[in-house]
Amino acid sequence: MPSGLHFLVASRQCEIGELEQLAHTSAVVDVISQFTHALQRERGISNVFLASRGRQFAAQREAQVQQCAALELQVRACFDTLDTEATRLRNGARLFSRIAFVLHALDALPALRERIAGLTADASQGAVAARAPVPAPQEAVAAYSRLVAGLLAVVFEAADSATDPTVSRALVALFNFMQGKEFAGQERAHGAAAFALGGADAAQQQQWQHLIDSQERCFQVFMDFTQAPLLAAWQACQLPAQRTELERLRRIGYTARAQGLRDPSLSSTWYACCTLRIDAMRGVEERLAADLRAICEQKVTEERAALRDQQLLLAQLPAPSAGTPPHSATAYGPQLERSILGLVQEQAQRLQAMGDELDTVRAALTERKVVERAKGLLMATRKLSEEEAFKMLRKTAMNQNRKIAEVAESVLAMAEFL
Amino acid sequence: MPSGLHFLVASRQCEIGELEQLAHTSAVVDVISQFTHALQRERGISNVFLASRGRQFAAQREAQVQQCAALELQVRACFDTLDTEATRLRNGARLFSRIAFVLHALDALPALRERIAGLTADASQGAVAARAPVPAPQEAVAAYSRLVAGLLAVVFEAADSATDPTVSRALVALFNFMQGKEFAGQERAHGAAAFALGGADAAQQQQWQHLIDSQERCFQVFMDFTQAPLLAAWQACQLPAQRTELERLRRIGYTARAQGLRDPSLSSTWYACCTLRIDAMRGVEERLAADLRAICEQKVTEERAALRDQQLLLAQLPAPSAGTPPHSATAYGPQLERSILGLVQEQAQRLQAMGDELDTVRAALTERKVVERAKGLLMATRKLSEEEAFKMLRKTAMNQNRKIAEVAESVLAMAEFL
Repeated sequence: MPSGLHFLVASRQCEIGELEQLAHTSAVVDVISQFTHALQRERGISNVFLASRGRQFAAQREAQVQQCAALELQVRACFDTLDTEATRLRNGARLFSRIAFVLHALDALPALRERIAGLTADASQGAVAARAPVPAPQEAVAAYSRLVAGLLAVVFEAADSATDPTVSRALVALFNFMQGKEFAGQERAHGAAAFALGGADAAQQQQWQHLIDSQERCFQVFMDFTQAPLLAAWQACQLPAQRTELERLRRIGYTARAQGLRDPSLSSTWYACCTLRIDAMRGVEERLAADLRAICEQKVTEERAALRDQQLLLAQLPAPSAGTPPHSATAYGPQLERSILGLVQEQAQRLQAMGDELDTVRAALTERKVVERAKGLLMATRKLSEEEAFKMLRKTAMNQNRKIAEVAESVLAMAEFL
Repeated sequence: MPSGLHFLVASRQCEIGELEQLAHTSAVVDVISQFTHALQRERGISNVFLASRGRQFAAQREAQVQQCAALELQVRACFDTLDTEATRLRNGARLFSRIAFVLHALDALPALRERIAGLTADASQGAVAARAPVPAPQEAVAAYSRLVAGLLAVVFEAADSATDPTVSRALVALFNFMQGKEFAGQERAHGAAAFALGGADAAQQQQWQHLIDSQERCFQVFMDFTQAPLLAAWQACQLPAQRTELERLRRIGYTARAQGLRDPSLSSTWYACCTLRIDAMRGVEERLAADLRAICEQKVTEERAALRDQQLLLAQLPAPSAGTPPHSATAYGPQLERSILGLVQEQAQRLQAMGDELDTVRAALTERKVVERAKGLLMATRKLSEEEAFKMLRKTAMNQNRKIAEVAESVLAMAEFL
């Protein structure tokens, strides 16, 4: 085989290697999406459990903790399979750094759960010496949310490292859907707290609006990047009656305080309405994750077949005529030469086109990167924690009625002055 | 060791793996730069040899062919070492596709050389039956230039796949220097042909100006990205007397035709002046390539030391206290917990900062990508060859007095109308 063709085959083999890696990462992302959903439920249930001083959801909480623990084992096992191919992994450094954060947060979870469980343990079994204090609902919610954010960051890195535009699209769609669903989960907690206090005050209204806008932006990106059947599934899961009820409750939450309406039972009505919505989202999310895995498998199969075809074609090449130097092209005659050149150029152009499409898809990830960058800048120059830096961005965005990403852009543009 | 820290170490190991790969690719780039320089000389010498109907440079040509053949073996050996780690290679698919093109062009080189040698063989040994015709100087120059462009594309892919911003800077600087030097080589051939015909006509003047502008843009990027000692070396190699002579000859080349000045000896004066300049450039290029390799080695050493330090630190962690669950964070106590979280966050932020810097450096490669993309679009929609597509872009740029990259942007913006 002429040496050029050998590398043409190697080029295809690299593509297959990258796709196989994506198939593996996508399997991990699938398990992460299941675990994230279970954690979001545990967060919601724990929030109500704590806010009701243990009167609600005690049994549900225990069942949910069991389910989370089982999924956690699956997630840890998945992470371990990634590790075995450590140095081969594209974007491995970033991915592993995100995983390290998740594992660190997971390690802290049993202690948090113990403190939450202490609420009923105190009442039924009497106080145990030196037991850690029961956390406030907000503290527990914040700890779960940090863990969920860490899991989403792992999915983000997976999306950011995809080298195939079709797979990248599916990952961008899934990541944005998961992030949108997470904002919906945060809205559930925020609303429940506001209703318990008789409606949102001005600051809570602003933050509520921010959570609604963020959700909508995420779902818009999801819709831009997903395929028709999944778009249909998403539209089908948004029942008109449910949407009306959600908007009605949002309106009441916004106006209750001004109108002096105090109905604490609205808190559970709100919670149930949001939970129905989020569980319906999970149905779509499951299909997205399954779709992603199917795309990866199909791509690997296609590429393997293409490689086989190419190898068959190359095997049919006549042996170089005797007497010509081994590296001489004339050994194959001008016509065959042109068709070999055609193959080489075709592969280069195909990769070029894929690269271009990939650039377009990845642009959708830029918004998040800009926010991360601005956060980092604020953390460094203002000595803020990550959460404080994000709050500062969000507050500025709310005050100026701009998107967080826009504020982040401005922060970066002003970098020299900070 | 808590599971999170295990992945923190894995994250660093991935970084080291990527740096080792870069060190290897940089060694290949070094050999490519030597070979490219030798090919540029062979192109120049062959051009004069053909244009003088074999009266000049016959012996030099044979010596240069020998030198190129020796370097070609080195380049092929380097490519083969890349192949052995095929599936591990970042950006492997693109890199190998570019290498396939180079090898294909190299395979055609012996036949071209035979045809060039035919010029004197015909005269001294008489015509051999069915000997391929001696190529026109332009045809030979075009074939060498395609090969050089292919080698530059390999260097470009190497630069585009670098994950470390410092290494990426050095690769961007080297790539742009090599590309600038190649434009200088093309200017030498272009000027030599123009002088042989008694000076440049209007179209040749435009193309000449384009080659000067392209060189300057490349060297500007090089200067923006290189380090101070190399910048000084570049400034030192541009002797004022030589620069004056170059500009004087350029002026004569532009105006000779209008002034009716016909002095064919100017062609060799021009050739000698350009060759001096290009050989001086090679001195800087050698240092750039050596610098790149040194940077890679230093980075690998630094990262390995950092990993060792981290591992030592982790080995000193006290064993988890008995009785706590294996994944429980409380096993380490809150203070140690905070410092572990610090390590995890530090790694994430370091990678973030590196990623940001990398984005900035890689933006310098965008111009070339935009041109490639526009070329692909023209090839597909207008059924043009790559060379025709590039000529079309260049002609439009010259007519509109704009940069090629600007025209390429416009082409892409008008994609729907093409």
